[in-house]
Amino acid sequence: MFEHLVVFKFNDSITPAKQQEFVSQLLALQDEIPGIIDLTAGINVTEETDHIQGFTLGLRVTFEDQEALRAYGPHPAHQAFVASLSGWVENVIVTDFPIPSR
Amino acid sequence: MFEHLVVFKFNDSITPAKQQEFVSQLLALQDEIPGIIDLTAGINVTEETDHIQGFTLGLRVTFEDQEALRAYGPHPAHQAFVASLSGWVENVIVTDFPIPSR
Repeated sequence: MFEHLVVFKFNDSITPAKQQEFVSQLLALQDEIPGIIDLTAGINVTEETDHIQGFTLGLRVTFEDQEALRAYGPHPAHQAFVASLSGWVENVIVTDFPIPSR
Repeated sequence: MFEHLVVFKFNDSITPAKQQEFVSQLLALQDEIPGIIDLTAGINVTEETDHIQGFTLGLRVTFEDQEALRAYGPHPAHQAFVASLSGWVENVIVTDFPIPSR
């Protein structure tokens, strides 16, 4: 399996409702894109306020393997999400790593 | 369930071996701390190089609920990990969010 973690920082103009719309779009990807084992996304409610730094939305996608992650990038449903971020997003950080079997 | 995503940026002096040591420490937490449903961690191998920004280690912990996350913070095994970061870590970003049941 392969883990894909993304944190999003939005422009100051974003509202909670708009962020929730992005969360809903992300959650829908699980049913639209093959190779996803599990997907979670949500608005950041961390109590570690020093570590928010403006990153107010998190995404975790667990893929079957790295090939599935590579196929996710250009998938039309993912690309539609990426396009919808235009004008809203200020920064995105991504970490990807293999998940060793336990 | 409750999701806890963390990305770590280290000082330039860190080596891959030292980062792997942190990954191993993190993976061990699953067996030491109650309330963890799943935990993954790894050195960032993302191919989205524009989105690394120095964040070279990712962690995902899925907890039973927010109370379990709150108990994880001060747990001695977690605190020992946090102490071991001293002098190595430059920045940490955290996103936490509830996982709606599907």
